[in-house]
Order: sequence, then C-alpha cells, then structure tokens
Amino acid sequence: MAMIDFWYSIGSTYSYLTVMRLSGVAQTAGIDFRWRPFNVRRVMMAQNNIPFKDKPEKTAHMWRDIERRAARYGLAPTIPAPYPLPGLVLANQVAILGAEEGWGEAYTRATYRRWFEVGQPAGEDANLSDSLSEIGEDPIRVIEAAQASRIVEALTLATNQAMEVGVFGSPSFLVDGELFWGDDRLDDAINWARVGKLT
Amino acid sequence: MAMIDFWYSIGSTYSYLTVMRLSGVAQTAGIDFRWRPFNVRRVMMAQNNIPFKDKPEKTAHMWRDIERRAARYGLAPTIPAPYPLPGLVLANQVAILGAEEGWGEAYTRATYRRWFEVGQPAGEDANLSDSLSEIGEDPIRVIEAAQASRIVEALTLATNQAMEVGVFGSPSFLVDGELFWGDDRLDDAINWARVGKLT
Repeated sequence: MAMIDFWYSIGSTYSYLTVMRLSGVAQTAGIDFRWRPFNVRRVMMAQNNIPFKDKPEKTAHMWRDIERRAARYGLAPTIPAPYPLPGLVLANQVAILGAEEGWGEAYTRATYRRWFEVGQPAGEDANLSDSLSEIGEDPIRVIEAAQASRIVEALTLATNQAMEVGVFGSPSFLVDGELFWGDDRLDDAINWARVGKLT
Repeated sequence: MAMIDFWYSIGSTYSYLTVMRLSGVAQTAGIDFRWRPFNVRRVMMAQNNIPFKDKPEKTAHMWRDIERRAARYGLAPTIPAPYPLPGLVLANQVAILGAEEGWGEAYTRATYRRWFEVGQPAGEDANLSDSLSEIGEDPIRVIEAAQASRIVEALTLATNQAMEVGVFGSPSFLVDGELFWGDDRLDDAINWARVGKLT
C-alpha cells in the first residue's frame, strides 16, 4: 500500500479540514497516512514565515475559505475558531505521546472537533480533558506523561525532521520525496502516490 | 452568462497557471471572466504581506508546486522563472491600456509565456516588444501610451478597487461578493458562480 507522511501541527487552522476528513479519504483512496505531529510555530519563527499575524485581509479570506470548503466536506465549524492558540506546544506533545501509544489520530480529531465546533481551544484544560476522556484515555495520566522530557525531546526531534524534509507549514504531505503543502494539495499528494505525477 | 472578476498582477508567479489556461476554462465552463490588472506589490507592501521574500523553503515549494501543476495543465515552464521582477509596474500599465483597447488578455498571455517559457522578464524591453509585436500591437506606441499619467492613475485606481473588495494577492476571483484567492481556487469560484456554494 502506498504511504504518505502527513505532517501536521495542532494549532494550524487549515489542518482542521485535513484532520476531519483524512480517515475517510485514506480509506477511499487505499492510501496509508502516517500522522506526524510537529511544532509548526517553531518552524515558522525560525523561517520568519508568520502567515496571518497582522494581516487582517488575508486572515479574513482564510476563515471564509475554510468555512466554504468545510461545508463541501460536510463539516460545520463555528468560524472563526479561537486563534492563535496559547497551548499549541502541549497540544502537540499530547499528539506525540498518542502517536507512540496508538491513539494519536483519534485524539487529534477529537481535539480539532472541540476547537472548531465547540469553541474549546486545543491544548487548554477543558479541551484536553474532554478530548482524552472521549477517546478513552485518562487525562491526568496523559497530561503528566506528555510533559516528560522524553516527549518534549520527541516533539523537538519531529520538528527538526520536518524541517529537514522541507516542511514549512501545516498540513504537509510527503510522498516519495515530493512535498505538498496545504489541505488543498491532499488530492495532488494522492495523485502523486498513485502515478508519480499530477493527472 | 455568469461573470467572474479575475484580479491579477503581472509579476505574480502563480498567476502564470491561471493566465495560460483561463481562456479554455472559461469556454468549457461557460463563464465570462473580466480580466482586471492591478499592482499586487503595492497591496502587499501596504499590508505587510510579502509571501516569498527571505523564505527559501516556502519559495522552493512554490516553484515545484507550479512545475507539477503546470504539467497537469499541459504547460512546460522553465522553473524557476526570473523572479522577482523589476518591471512589474510598467508591465501592468501596459495591461491596463490593453484592457481598455481590447488586447489585454492576449498581451497578458504572451508576456507570461515569454516570462515563464522563454526566460524574458515581464515588463522588460525584450519581453514587451516581442509580446506586443506578437499580438499585432506597436511596441513604441504602446510603451509610450502606457506611461501616460492617465494610465498610471488607472492602475492606481484599479489597485484601490482591488483592496476595497478584499483582494490581497494574485490571482483572485470575485463572484457575487465572494473572494477566492489562488489559481487553486479557480474551480471553487466557478462552482460558486454556478450554484452559490461548493459542491
């Protein structure tokens, strides 16, 4: 089965569209996606690439664009969602632990749903507790374990790896050395995984 | 017939993909596009939104993304094209004059083809002369007329209008008050023109 690395960072707005539909898309396409959390904010600060800060026109389009495309995918977010998020680092540390323990994908979907559809910022107590409980994980255990230095280092390592393969934003898809950035490039990445070009 | 305003600025890289395929897309879709040149650089400077300057990772993805998608559209650009362009303002003044006189679309295609497929920067003498001659316009007359204060003001006015409707980048599509940014949103804009939502 073809394999695509799905690099994402909880805190990215457009990643909502990918996170919420990827499971179905993967099944339909017969493609296996490896969910790779990283810290996109650290990458953006390092690369002086802050896409929406102090850019109200671009930000307004981003929210409307997400709203229009979410409707196409059968999603019903409350736009705008809280943004930017203060708890991005912890949110992604939990995702790293979840990837290790096998519940990363379920947690990411749950936390994004609460962030975009309930208005609970990802990475904050209410969202973390409710999302983890929803997927059958103990919030107290997970939130403590996610702050262990081993997990802090694993997120740093994943972020370094993302930068090494050219990732500069979230969501990104890497297939056979080809980088595709953006939820709107998911179809291109699948196309590439199948036939090595865009058709 | 449905009508979409196509806001573009010669000097924008992604606009190459739209400019080269829009005539065919419009015919197939039965949609009329009004080509509206503006000065995207002035908008970006005003909004502190400089998407590729000093961002080598994002720029590398942009060129590869254009190359992959150009192949899908049957285009064969030489990547990277010269960028950024010093002659952007004159290039767009010529486009404004062309829009008035009925040859703006043909000139824009000719100048983009030479920029991306021949390596002649848009707005420079060689590209201007060859592109205008190719479409049957006199380069000496046009280049002088395009620098008249009336045309300078018309480009400023068009750029102000673009900002008033929320345009912050090129290419952009405006249909029924809905703004779509990016060559990758052309299908969405057509979708919206037809049914008022994305399907």
